[in-house]
Amino acid sequence: MTRQDRPKDRVNVHMQGHVPDVMAVMRAGQAQLCGAFEALDGSAHFGTKAWERPGGGGGTARALSDGAVFEKAGINTSAVYGARTPPALWQTHPGTKDQSYFAGGISLVLHPRNPYVPAFHANFRYFESGDEHWFGGGMDMTPSYGFEEDARHFHCTLRDYCLRHGADYAALKATCDRYFTIKHRSEMRGIGGIFFDEIALGSFEATLAFVQDGINTILEAYQPIVERRMHTPFGERQRQWQLYRRGRYVEFNLVYDRGTVFGLQTSGNIEAILMSLPPLARWEFDFVPASGSAEDVTLRFLQPRDWV
Amino acid sequence: MTRQDRPKDRVNVHMQGHVPDVMAVMRAGQAQLCGAFEALDGSAHFGTKAWERPGGGGGTARALSDGAVFEKAGINTSAVYGARTPPALWQTHPGTKDQSYFAGGISLVLHPRNPYVPAFHANFRYFESGDEHWFGGGMDMTPSYGFEEDARHFHCTLRDYCLRHGADYAALKATCDRYFTIKHRSEMRGIGGIFFDEIALGSFEATLAFVQDGINTILEAYQPIVERRMHTPFGERQRQWQLYRRGRYVEFNLVYDRGTVFGLQTSGNIEAILMSLPPLARWEFDFVPASGSAEDVTLRFLQPRDWV
Repeated sequence: MTRQDRPKDRVNVHMQGHVPDVMAVMRAGQAQLCGAFEALDGSAHFGTKAWERPGGGGGTARALSDGAVFEKAGINTSAVYGARTPPALWQTHPGTKDQSYFAGGISLVLHPRNPYVPAFHANFRYFESGDEHWFGGGMDMTPSYGFEEDARHFHCTLRDYCLRHGADYAALKATCDRYFTIKHRSEMRGIGGIFFDEIALGSFEATLAFVQDGINTILEAYQPIVERRMHTPFGERQRQWQLYRRGRYVEFNLVYDRGTVFGLQTSGNIEAILMSLPPLARWEFDFVPASGSAEDVTLRFLQPRDWV
Repeated sequence: MTRQDRPKDRVNVHMQGHVPDVMAVMRAGQAQLCGAFEALDGSAHFGTKAWERPGGGGGTARALSDGAVFEKAGINTSAVYGARTPPALWQTHPGTKDQSYFAGGISLVLHPRNPYVPAFHANFRYFESGDEHWFGGGMDMTPSYGFEEDARHFHCTLRDYCLRHGADYAALKATCDRYFTIKHRSEMRGIGGIFFDEIALGSFEATLAFVQDGINTILEAYQPIVERRMHTPFGERQRQWQLYRRGRYVEFNLVYDRGTVFGLQTSGNIEAILMSLPPLARWEFDFVPASGSAEDVTLRFLQPRDWV
């Protein structure tokens, strides 16, 4: 059944217009990425859990755990709507207050097993409310052990991706650096990437193409780094440091991440929202790595820096 | 040097009046409790880290880790002040907006090693701002495996404690049940206890005596439970469930706990504030314990319930 011949009275107001095209891109991305990361892992598979939101909409959560390469991976799509925008939405877009809204997107989080492989996060999302519609998203990487070569590859791939679409890499990188800051620690969650709250590249179609290419760029940006580091031998010290750094990941996501806050406020699917949290994390009082150690060097990666 | 003969010009405005008496109670409680929990642990010792807050004040963090009984324990005192109340304070006490403030107290968190021993939390704090001063605090318990006998002992001890001071146990328990709710999960963090935001028991002296007796009641309420459960044999299944439940503890503290939010907003000592977080915690997508299992039964403890 195509959009045109669906009975009008059963079509949610938001399900007209751009939503079907956007969600088709998100869902195709989910299927493609699950396949690619399963192949990279070589051992575990993604399960699938569809959920409905009582207030309107729902999603599909796909989770992999205990893989050879990925200790936990989650790739979700969701499409939710409601009669009134939640605070997290109208606070940044005052024009949408008391309006109905649609929010749909894809999000992906990978927590690798080997401490030398960075964790990875991406999301792309689309909002409609009142007369407004906009895209947000981006991707960023969180190493436990920093390697300049990896950071350069990641950021150069993102710069080239932006260039292909006439998007301003430097501005999107700066937004990402600001956003992924753990304010109470005065440190970044990782080495950043690109991030945008609202982007307009000439037309809706051009912006959707940017998002679609962003989803495709995930593998190009991340896979070579995984392959380069996934067989590096490691011991208990590296594992403990990885778990400790994952504590920071939890702090950022629960205290600052807008997607998480938005999800909790809109009574989204809690398990899907919190799928971003690491499988295991630790906290240790007043831990400071030895000066000059590999752990200490990595901390210097966690401030905004020009990687290209 | 007594309060009276201290040179007037070197005394912070907040350091007159009730503050010295209050902080003496808090500091004596810290010393007593560190000694008692070290004795109970029988293996590890509390380290001490004093810190100063650039904006005014400071504290003493005492931490124990990797003990025989306690995987992590933190008992902190702090006394901070500032020229303007932070939002977390004036939002609940509008009369204090733009006023200077003093906030001092003791907080204690114990994360035991054995999954059958509940985690424990208590804090007592004192605020002065503008013409107002008040006490807040309480204590609550968070089992991974619920035992009615333990919950009854804990709540009966708290009821008796309240009775001794003419405090309304039922009201303080209800406040605790409401406060320690993980809203996005519709479940409590544990089995509650008592909690009060602001309490007045006739006079300042009577209220301070209530707080002092509260600190003394911690051992009576918790120690018999620790001793009863600390030698219970457990395996990997119980350990994994404990780590999973600790994930909920993290969710509550980072998303809802007012002490944590207040601490992050006042740039308190981050390590001391986040000392409440468990040493190790895990998240698992969409985990549901088998119906009727010990884990499933425990979930039924996590709704408000009359324990006395």
